[in-house]
Amino acid sequence: MSEQVSASLAAASARPVHVVPVDLGKAYRLINHGPTVLVSAAHGGRRNVMAAAWNMPLDFSPPKVAVVIDRKTFTRELIEGSGEFALCVPTRAQIDAVCLVGSASGREQDKFAEAGLWAFAGSKTGAPLVEGCVAWLECRVLDEPEMAQRYDLFLAEVVAAWADERLFDGGRWREIDPACSTLHHVAGGVFFTQGEVVQTSRA
Amino acid sequence: MSEQVSASLAAASARPVHVVPVDLGKAYRLINHGPTVLVSAAHGGRRNVMAAAWNMPLDFSPPKVAVVIDRKTFTRELIEGSGEFALCVPTRAQIDAVCLVGSASGREQDKFAEAGLWAFAGSKTGAPLVEGCVAWLECRVLDEPEMAQRYDLFLAEVVAAWADERLFDGGRWREIDPACSTLHHVAGGVFFTQGEVVQTSRA
Repeated sequence: MSEQVSASLAAASARPVHVVPVDLGKAYRLINHGPTVLVSAAHGGRRNVMAAAWNMPLDFSPPKVAVVIDRKTFTRELIEGSGEFALCVPTRAQIDAVCLVGSASGREQDKFAEAGLWAFAGSKTGAPLVEGCVAWLECRVLDEPEMAQRYDLFLAEVVAAWADERLFDGGRWREIDPACSTLHHVAGGVFFTQGEVVQTSRA
Repeated sequence: MSEQVSASLAAASARPVHVVPVDLGKAYRLINHGPTVLVSAAHGGRRNVMAAAWNMPLDFSPPKVAVVIDRKTFTRELIEGSGEFALCVPTRAQIDAVCLVGSASGREQDKFAEAGLWAFAGSKTGAPLVEGCVAWLECRVLDEPEMAQRYDLFLAEVVAAWADERLFDGGRWREIDPACSTLHHVAGGVFFTQGEVVQTSRA
């Protein structure tokens, strides 16, 4: 790890006490319901964060994810440099920050500072984990350069996962506090929040 | 088109009057908020339908999608035979049918009949479109056999899109009637429905 990256990580806060590890076999559940995520990455002393509605689980075990990351983004440069990123699941309280980091570029500015976002360090990657989110997946990029080239599509293995234990506990989301709902982007800064929990009546 | 497929399509109902075409440039919005979908396909006189939480838009124009389809499924055989499938976006009212077609195999039975689902014909593919859903994307598989082989991942171009105009109109979802909410799978037959619509305060 370069001195610059070390300095950048040293500037990150300590992990909040309510952030607990999630069993890797259950990590897919953190994004299974289709939330818009923040994609964060760091490389060579720089860091960045962007928004991505186009993400999904790709496998259970080892857990994998797929996410679309436009070739014009600075986050993509950092991911291609480091081979790592994190998917962070933001809440309704962060809607303005999500929209800011989803539209501005981080090439000329620190979007964390601009959006009022803080980060803490993960355990397996150097990607900054955004505070105030409810779940985090630390990911290592799988070697599929043609997918990135043709479709801006990144496939990655989840190497560590975290959740806010007040909201996700024992491998399951609790009944959601509407104030802490995940965000599900429709278009143009309009999102659905999470509604009622429903369950099949089939055995 | 084989006689058998023609016969199968002839058995499909006519397109319901409230199902209207969606501009292809807006087709991504039908699944952008992360709903669990039904994947349907037909080939050689057989048809099938399964559930897939792992789906996402992949591009705007021409619109593309990505979806994970397990190699053991009968739907996959039909997709590999025909090169086509449809993503249908089901509602809360269909939760039991979604869970049935998401767990049973269609190799030995007609899951449409089993789950009480009816289908109507699309315009550009032979994939059956499931009635009672709120949106439909007719898709042609892109030639990426290594992705299917390695990750069960299918990439496809959306060649026609449809929506229930009572819920999606002018390229936008209307405020959702809770009874018609899309389903967002957590695990084990438990889903979130859509909640409140929220919008960024950023200009």
